[in-house]
Amino acid sequence: MNLIVVDEKEVDLTYIMLKKEAESGGYFLNPDPEFTKNLVRGLMKNEKRYGYRACPCRLASGKKDEDLDIICPCNYRDPDLNDFGACYCALYVNEAVAGGKKQSEPVPERRPPRSERGKKRPMPTGSAFPASTLAFPVWRCTVCGYLCAREQPPEICPVCKAKKERFERFI
Amino acid sequence: MNLIVVDEKEVDLTYIMLKKEAESGGYFLNPDPEFTKNLVRGLMKNEKRYGYRACPCRLASGKKDEDLDIICPCNYRDPDLNDFGACYCALYVNEAVAGGKKQSEPVPERRPPRSERGKKRPMPTGSAFPASTLAFPVWRCTVCGYLCAREQPPEICPVCKAKKERFERFI
Amino acid sequence: MNLIVVDEKEVDLTYIMLKKEAESGGYFLNPDPEFTKNLVRGLMKNEKRYGYRACPCRLASGKKDEDLDIICPCNYRDPDLNDFGACYCALYVNEAVAGGKKQSEPVPERRPPRSERGKKRPMPTGSAFPASTLAFPVWRCTVCGYLCAREQPPEICPVCKAKKERFERFI
Repeated sequence: MNLIVVDEKEVDLTYIMLKKEAESGGYFLNPDPEFTKNLVRGLMKNEKRYGYRACPCRLASGKKDEDLDIICPCNYRDPDLNDFGACYCALYVNEAVAGGKKQSEPVPERRPPRSERGKKRPMPTGSAFPASTLAFPVWRCTVCGYLCAREQPPEICPVCKAKKERFERFI
Repeated sequence: MNLIVVDEKEVDLTYIMLKKEAESGGYFLNPDPEFTKNLVRGLMKNEKRYGYRACPCRLASGKKDEDLDIICPCNYRDPDLNDFGACYCALYVNEAVAGGKKQSEPVPERRPPRSERGKKRPMPTGSAFPASTLAFPVWRCTVCGYLCAREQPPEICPVCKAKKERFERFI
Repeated sequence: MNLIVVDEKEVDLTYIMLKKEAESGGYFLNPDPEFTKNLVRGLMKNEKRYGYRACPCRLASGKKDEDLDIICPCNYRDPDLNDFGACYCALYVNEAVAGGKKQSEPVPERRPPRSERGKKRPMPTGSAFPASTLAFPVWRCTVCGYLCAREQPPEICPVCKAKKERFERFI
């Protein structure tokens, strides 16, 4: 596995881009640059290995459909930031941890077991929710919860930069 | 028409600003700088001519009310990015085209014929949608689908930078 | 009160950061740098005094719970930008005022009297609004109206950078 080599200049560049993207959306990278660049290196290796940036701290299946929820930023980042001050890898931390005012807590694995993964939530149905009265469907980013109303989801989530495949129909 | 002259330094500056704005919202300008600057030049000429940045590849009426849907970014950009990888002008492209991995396809005109334009969609009404139980009306950006709940739409869409007049009541 | 001193280099840095943050979300700071830096100085003094950036033009109680609505950006900024072209302090202005094309108008105090403050709006209830059919609760930023659907509100509003405590349940 370690034979996959990534260019160190690209690691630095990717680190800078992720940091900028994070901050523009109200997120923070881990304040320890060496620790963080090591995670970035892992992301880039996974990108070469699988074709997508699977979480560097979890075992990916290599099948994109099964791994969608752990493509970084993963679907569990935001609840983990809320409950523990950091994501599972501690690549992302909350403001208090970023500013050195708090330490993040150990983060338990929140990902459901394999048998429960990848199930699409059923759409709200029945006369209870009159989605048909809305002019457009409402889409939800499964990573950050961003909502928008349009024919199709956006190419890239404007808030967390997750790709279109991470959106689900919400209403 | 060609007598309208724009300052080339301003073209460069506007190009840089549009590129930055696009990327902060998850959009991409065409990767060919000369092609793109030519479109920017067209936008700036239209701004001088009409007072707003009408699409450089369509014939504007000069009446802002009738042209709202083709003020750049136009209401058709996002569906066209989704279906063809580029907007009608190819000023905006999707990530694959921006990165040189794909070529955009020819984009047919999606704008409705004149007789069907500018009609405001009727608000959802009736007991089917209980908007009255919400604390604020929900507004939708007609360009990018951004949703927000407040007394009035924002001055500028935080995602795509469209102006207030491009918002419609959604709920 | 004036014994609270803030470092002038930090004022300059905070001014630059606020300006950048404002523009990335479609907002504008007052175009007069000296006037604006004076307000930034007031915000920083309030941060030292109370622990949060209470509005520099209003009298804070010093109890965060009672002052949430006037932590800058205050809950009244966006309606005031809409109606008068500036917030109560004129720290934030709309695009026309920022570009020198208009002057802002005097802004009356929109904050409700003390007896009516801090009341949480009751959640929409009853069979009229079938929130229970949605997969996630919908949260609303009380500052800018941003909506998202997730277990808990985000740490920081991606649009206006208000903190989690400024969110309310919307659906």
